[in-house]
Amino acid sequence: MIASDKSSVQILLKRCLAAGMKTIVCSPGSRNAPIVISADSHPDIETLVIHDERVAAFYALGISLATREPVGLTCTSGSAMLNYYPAIAEAYYQCVPLIIMTADRPEEWINHGDGQTIVQKGVYYNHVHGELVIPESAKEKGVYAEKIEELLRNAISGWRGPVHFNLPFAEPLYDTAEVTASEVFPFNVGIEPFRAESLRAFKKEWKAAKKIMVLVGQMDRDVGTEKLINDLSLDPSICVLVENTSNLSGSRLNHCIDRSLNVIPEDQWDEFKPDLLLTFGGAVISKRIKTFLRNTKGLKHFRVGFEFPEMDTYRHLTQHIFASPFDILKILQKKEMRKYHSNFGSKWKQLDFLVKDHQDLYLDSIEFSDLKVFHWINQFLPNGTYLHMANSSVVRYCQLFDPVQDAKYYGNRGTSGIDGSTSTALGFAFKMPENLNVLVTGDISFLYDSNALWTKYLLGNVKIILVNNNGGGIFKIIDGPSSTPQLEEYFEAKHEQTAEHICRAFNINYRSVSDDTGLQGELSTFFKDFGVGRPDLLEVFTDSSRNDKVLKNYFQEAKTWI
Amino acid sequence: MIASDKSSVQILLKRCLAAGMKTIVCSPGSRNAPIVISADSHPDIETLVIHDERVAAFYALGISLATREPVGLTCTSGSAMLNYYPAIAEAYYQCVPLIIMTADRPEEWINHGDGQTIVQKGVYYNHVHGELVIPESAKEKGVYAEKIEELLRNAISGWRGPVHFNLPFAEPLYDTAEVTASEVFPFNVGIEPFRAESLRAFKKEWKAAKKIMVLVGQMDRDVGTEKLINDLSLDPSICVLVENTSNLSGSRLNHCIDRSLNVIPEDQWDEFKPDLLLTFGGAVISKRIKTFLRNTKGLKHFRVGFEFPEMDTYRHLTQHIFASPFDILKILQKKEMRKYHSNFGSKWKQLDFLVKDHQDLYLDSIEFSDLKVFHWINQFLPNGTYLHMANSSVVRYCQLFDPVQDAKYYGNRGTSGIDGSTSTALGFAFKMPENLNVLVTGDISFLYDSNALWTKYLLGNVKIILVNNNGGGIFKIIDGPSSTPQLEEYFEAKHEQTAEHICRAFNINYRSVSDDTGLQGELSTFFKDFGVGRPDLLEVFTDSSRNDKVLKNYFQEAKTWI
Repeated sequence: MIASDKSSVQILLKRCLAAGMKTIVCSPGSRNAPIVISADSHPDIETLVIHDERVAAFYALGISLATREPVGLTCTSGSAMLNYYPAIAEAYYQCVPLIIMTADRPEEWINHGDGQTIVQKGVYYNHVHGELVIPESAKEKGVYAEKIEELLRNAISGWRGPVHFNLPFAEPLYDTAEVTASEVFPFNVGIEPFRAESLRAFKKEWKAAKKIMVLVGQMDRDVGTEKLINDLSLDPSICVLVENTSNLSGSRLNHCIDRSLNVIPEDQWDEFKPDLLLTFGGAVISKRIKTFLRNTKGLKHFRVGFEFPEMDTYRHLTQHIFASPFDILKILQKKEMRKYHSNFGSKWKQLDFLVKDHQDLYLDSIEFSDLKVFHWINQFLPNGTYLHMANSSVVRYCQLFDPVQDAKYYGNRGTSGIDGSTSTALGFAFKMPENLNVLVTGDISFLYDSNALWTKYLLGNVKIILVNNNGGGIFKIIDGPSSTPQLEEYFEAKHEQTAEHICRAFNINYRSVSDDTGLQGELSTFFKDFGVGRPDLLEVFTDSSRNDKVLKNYFQEAKTWI
Repeated sequence: MIASDKSSVQILLKRCLAAGMKTIVCSPGSRNAPIVISADSHPDIETLVIHDERVAAFYALGISLATREPVGLTCTSGSAMLNYYPAIAEAYYQCVPLIIMTADRPEEWINHGDGQTIVQKGVYYNHVHGELVIPESAKEKGVYAEKIEELLRNAISGWRGPVHFNLPFAEPLYDTAEVTASEVFPFNVGIEPFRAESLRAFKKEWKAAKKIMVLVGQMDRDVGTEKLINDLSLDPSICVLVENTSNLSGSRLNHCIDRSLNVIPEDQWDEFKPDLLLTFGGAVISKRIKTFLRNTKGLKHFRVGFEFPEMDTYRHLTQHIFASPFDILKILQKKEMRKYHSNFGSKWKQLDFLVKDHQDLYLDSIEFSDLKVFHWINQFLPNGTYLHMANSSVVRYCQLFDPVQDAKYYGNRGTSGIDGSTSTALGFAFKMPENLNVLVTGDISFLYDSNALWTKYLLGNVKIILVNNNGGGIFKIIDGPSSTPQLEEYFEAKHEQTAEHICRAFNINYRSVSDDTGLQGELSTFFKDFGVGRPDLLEVFTDSSRNDKVLKNYFQEAKTWI
């Protein structure tokens, strides 16, 4: 097998394989040639080539989300690596293991006037689980090999996330050597079992609590956890709030937090406030539930997981429990764990039933608008879809609907940026060629990340629905901007751009609609025959002067449904 | 006058005005509303709105290069600021004063699960001239006002460059107050005069040197310096090497370093090596001259300027002199400064004359290729053009031609990235509406930064020439990649993409050519009637299988011309 003659690359790639990495997204450059040549030559590494490093890194994120494996990234020296940063921050907050391998010049040439040279060391400091500069002559048996392993373990075990290897290379960069592919022994990434005594306080409070709320943030689908959480939800004193990004289904779970919270009469709020809150998973989308819980006096909050142990979202953190949600739910299943009974959970679930019954009927009747579009999307989405939601208004609208059966929901809720939604979805879809992947996005997010389409990795399993309301619709539905004279120009930032020619530029099948009947017609066939040919994009034009009013009316009207 | 009620914004903007800032590039967001509202309401601040923060920051860079004033940037909290980073690094190495104003959440909410929240403090640490977190209640007379002034002075005086203000804002974000626009007193940015005794060693060496080379890097056009350097070039013992980005003209200057170096027979190299090297300006494009000087034994190198005093590009740095090039050249003008005479400078100039005479004739005769395209561009470019060169092969090809009369040359040579060439050029052109601005770019650079076209700030004074050789042509003309099996897929990374539909998407007039006659025909009218309507783009298709051979032949053939 051929590899670069730089030993640092050989020892790094070997350990990346041991850590489970099977894919590297490469961006063209000269300085990173040693990594590219070695990765391409290795039979167990798949290499992708993507020019725009911002796109490349979000693709890597999407691939890691799809495969649940760490994914490598490599780029040349200089500003290339800075373009990775938005995706690295997203990976950090979404706890996704990216292995970033930046090529660099030897340290003695930094800040001495050579091209494509910046100070790369420390750039990602705030948002990685460690950084290591590997000298190019690092040896197979030596301190660097150990340090590499340590960093990779940080990436893939417990609190997972991105790590950064910076590799200085002197010229010549293209020399190779014949090496034998040695057997790879996967890392042991066993996590320390939690100690039973650390649960004493939690168990006591859990048993004593009258009103328990379990709130689940963003999670990968996990059948075991889903079973346990559904068992838990049978207890009428426990309400379980999830979002579609929690990827948990169940008839007694509350799937639409904002929808439920909206209909609680203000004078009954206290009845719906828990005295114990158990949370796990990543980001929670609903801002309303955050405000609601922050304003809940005397709340005890137990948080389960390995990540961000200091995080105190609701300002009532009692204890962070270092354990997997599955292990804790398993304990809670035991009969002796629950003595007190109330109808707290049932009351929450009742809200949900009442609203849900009215909602479909009501939405059938409203005029064409963003809300109506999301209603139809939700009606037509096939079971089992992988649904990727862009940020801002898209992900918020999607929270108003019960999840589609067996669908899996994704969104970049780590930093909630609009910068890489398309790239992440397309990276994911590339690794799921047999499955329908639907991206729902807005005009600003789509245009922002249109370079996502500039790759060789677009398959026919991708369907994009672009809701174009000619600007940042989010700024018309949140409080504040509407009261300013700057609304249209600076916040909504209206524009007349469409996706039509961008689709032509990148050979994406394009069609558009701008009314209710047209949309229903398109959606009735749009998801069929996926998997052949090129991706399809459906652009849905809505009237920005109407969208905010329709949404506000919905929230107003819904209050009368209970 | 209306302003945000956050006092931090008021005191910051007032001082930015005092520092000479007149423009802020805003990216839509909610958290930065206090800055946007205040900037928009201020009669002396022009505000632009650009969605993609990567583009926004490169636009700001271009605007600062055009106006020679500091330019503001503001974005919302979270990953938005990370998209600024490529342009910030470029500004840092090109010494351009950007005033970055990132909105943030209050510190107690960082890493607590709220959306669009990352650890913003310290992100740019490696590539700014300082950072300041300004509490929103900072007072007009107080320590923060002083710190703000100090940071702004760092940005605009001596060693100039970007600075970062991070502004945490608690909600509500949209409240305003009536304020009176107070008179602005421009900062005194007087630079400490250099001490005469610091020049003692330099003067002594200068007088004693037999062979002097003056090498000028990237610079803004400066008439005074140009006059002095031309006077200096009359001394036959002094050779003056400049690049088009030095923006210095003169009949005795060597304008094409690589072209000259190429024709020196190896056995005569020593005769062309200086014993004293004087340098000023920013980045030098020629890699050959760097290698040549690094291999020059016993060289004394004096470097003049305020920036990067530790920078030792040629590994012979004798002394860094903190002074302006103008002041030092003024001293060198004095008659007593030069006692020794040689024909060292004349020999260098003679090389140049000989090559130049042959080149045009030779290039007229070669087949259609990248080199030929650049030949014609150089022939047809109108006098006085502002020429913006993208990186990689474009900027290198452009170095082979004598500069067009009164043209000014720009390129992102700080980090030499391909990430923002179009945005920088368009930002620059927006502030030069009366002048013809030509961007010459390659297919990869153009596609990478196509979001540069997604703005409201495109004027008819922009003409873009896109040399499309279906991939990274640079990798075929540098040593190394051609010897690998990965050349086409990973380095050149061939593609079939054109700019046609991207131009349609953004309403840019598009035309294309792919042969010599066609190109000459287009170029004969392309630059006419600039300033009306929309920008024009001319896509020139060349054959990637031929370009590298033609260029290699040119360098080979040129050796026979002396």
